[in-house]
Amino acid sequence: MFTLGVDIGSTTSKAVILKDGQEILATSLIKAGTGTDGPGRAIEAVLAEGNLRPEEIASVYATGYGRKLLKNADGEMSELSCHARGVHHLLPEVRTIIDIGGQDAKVLSLGTDGRMTEFLMNDKCAAGTGRFLDVMAGILQLRIEDLEKQAALSKQIVKISSTCTVFAESEVISQLANGVEIPDLVAGICQSVASRVAALAKRVGVKETVCMSGGVAKNGGVRKAMEQELGLNITYSPMAQLMGALGAALYAYDKS
Amino acid sequence: MFTLGVDIGSTTSKAVILKDGQEILATSLIKAGTGTDGPGRAIEAVLAEGNLRPEEIASVYATGYGRKLLKNADGEMSELSCHARGVHHLLPEVRTIIDIGGQDAKVLSLGTDGRMTEFLMNDKCAAGTGRFLDVMAGILQLRIEDLEKQAALSKQIVKISSTCTVFAESEVISQLANGVEIPDLVAGICQSVASRVAALAKRVGVKETVCMSGGVAKNGGVRKAMEQELGLNITYSPMAQLMGALGAALYAYDKS
Ligand code: SF4
Repeated sequence: MFTLGVDIGSTTSKAVILKDGQEILATSLIKAGTGTDGPGRAIEAVLAEGNLRPEEIASVYATGYGRKLLKNADGEMSELSCHARGVHHLLPEVRTIIDIGGQDAKVLSLGTDGRMTEFLMNDKCAAGTGRFLDVMAGILQLRIEDLEKQAALSKQIVKISSTCTVFAESEVISQLANGVEIPDLVAGICQSVASRVAALAKRVGVKETVCMSGGVAKNGGVRKAMEQELGLNITYSPMAQLMGALGAALYAYDKS
Repeated sequence: MFTLGVDIGSTTSKAVILKDGQEILATSLIKAGTGTDGPGRAIEAVLAEGNLRPEEIASVYATGYGRKLLKNADGEMSELSCHARGVHHLLPEVRTIIDIGGQDAKVLSLGTDGRMTEFLMNDKCAAGTGRFLDVMAGILQLRIEDLEKQAALSKQIVKISSTCTVFAESEVISQLANGVEIPDLVAGICQSVASRVAALAKRVGVKETVCMSGGVAKNGGVRKAMEQELGLNITYSPMAQLMGALGAALYAYDKS
C-alpha cells in the first residue's frame, strides 16, 4: 500500500511516497510554494519517480504552511508533528531537533516514542535565522551556497559582537573596511547564528542525539559552529528538507 | 562664576556654559563626536558665544561616551546622571525621561529630588531606536527630517506587524508594492518605534510628567505616537540634546 505526504511551504513544495508505512519509494522537491503550481508539480514529480498513477495512492496527507489549500487530501497535520514523526522514523535515536529556516528557528524535544514533548520557536527576530545569513551574504557579495566553503577556509574566526542583524551589518562592513579576511568573517557569521539558536535550544533543554534540519542546516559552517556551541556531535540527514512530507506520509498510512 | 559641561557622544559634541549654577549663558552643538576635533570645536564655539576666555571658566566636567578623552576636565560624570540632572534643572516636574537615540533607547525614572531611581535601556535591538527610522527612511527614499511632515499627512495609519527591523523592511517594501500611501506607512513606522519604546517604559513604570529627549524625539510623529501609546501628554524641550552637557555643567558647579 502506498501513501503520499505533501509538505507545502512558503517557498518550496515537497512530496514523499511511502510503501507500507515503512519504505521511502520516491521523493520530490519543487522550488515553488503555496499559492503556486508547486504543490501540483511536486505530486506529479513524486508519482513519476515512483512510477505510480494517482489512483494507486491509498491516502494523502498535507502539512506545512499551505496545507489547507491542498484539494483532495484525506487529512492534514501540523508541520511540527509531521517533522517530529519524519525524523523519528529515519533517526529513532534523535531526542532534539534544531530546525533553522529562512525566517525562523525552532527547537523540538522528542520523547523516546518520537512524540514532541517541548517546543520553542523564534520567528520574531531575524538574528539566528536564514535571514541573518542572507543579509550578511549580501554585504559580502557571496552566494548563500558559498558560505560553507568560505567558513571552512577561516584561519581565525572574527567574532561578531552585535546580536542584532542590523547592528551586525554595520559591524561586518567596518570589519571589511579594516581589511579582515572574508573567510574569518564568514566563520564569525556562522557562529553568530549558531550561538543565537543554541541559546534557544538550551532553554528547551538539549538531549542527545541532536539532529539539525531546515534550509540553514545544509550549511556545514553553521552545523560545525552549533557543535562547538553545544559541545556535542550533531546528526544531519540529507533528507532534512523532506522530514515534514515523510511525517505526513506516515500519518496518511495510519489512517488508511 | 562660570562652569562648563561637555557631552562627547559618538557622533556629536555638545557644550553648555552655566552662570552661577543657574542661568544658561551659552550652548553649542557640533556634528562630530569622540575621536574627532568635535569636542574641541564645541568648546571653542560655546566660549565664543558666551564671549568668555578659557581661564574665566571655574570648572569643566565631561560626560558622554567619549568623556574619558577630554583633557583638562576637572571631573566626569555618567551620561545618565548628567541627563537626569539637566532635565531636572529645566523641567523639575519631570519624573520619567524617555530618550531615543540613534542606536539605543533609554527610560529613566526620577525621584522628586531629580535623582535617577530606575533605569532600563535597549541597546541590543535596532527596533525602537533611530536606526529603525534610518532603515525605513532609506527604503522610502526620504530624509529623516521629512518623516515628521510625512506622518502628519497620514489619513489612515498602516500598522507594521513585524517588530524586527529586518522583517519590517520586507513588510514595508511589499506594502509599497501594494500601492499603500507613503504618509500612512510613515505613520506606521513612527508608531512602531513608539510602541517598542513604550513597552520598555511600562516595564520601568511611567510616572507623569513624561519628557522625551534624544535625536528621535525631534520627530513629532514619534512623539505623537508615544502620547497615544502611553495615553498621556509628553513634554518636549528643544534643549533635549543639550541636557547631558547642562547636567555636566551643574556637576562642575557643585565642585567649584
Ligand atoms: S535584534 Fe535586530 S534582528 Fe533581532 S528583532 Fe531586533 S532589529 Fe530584528
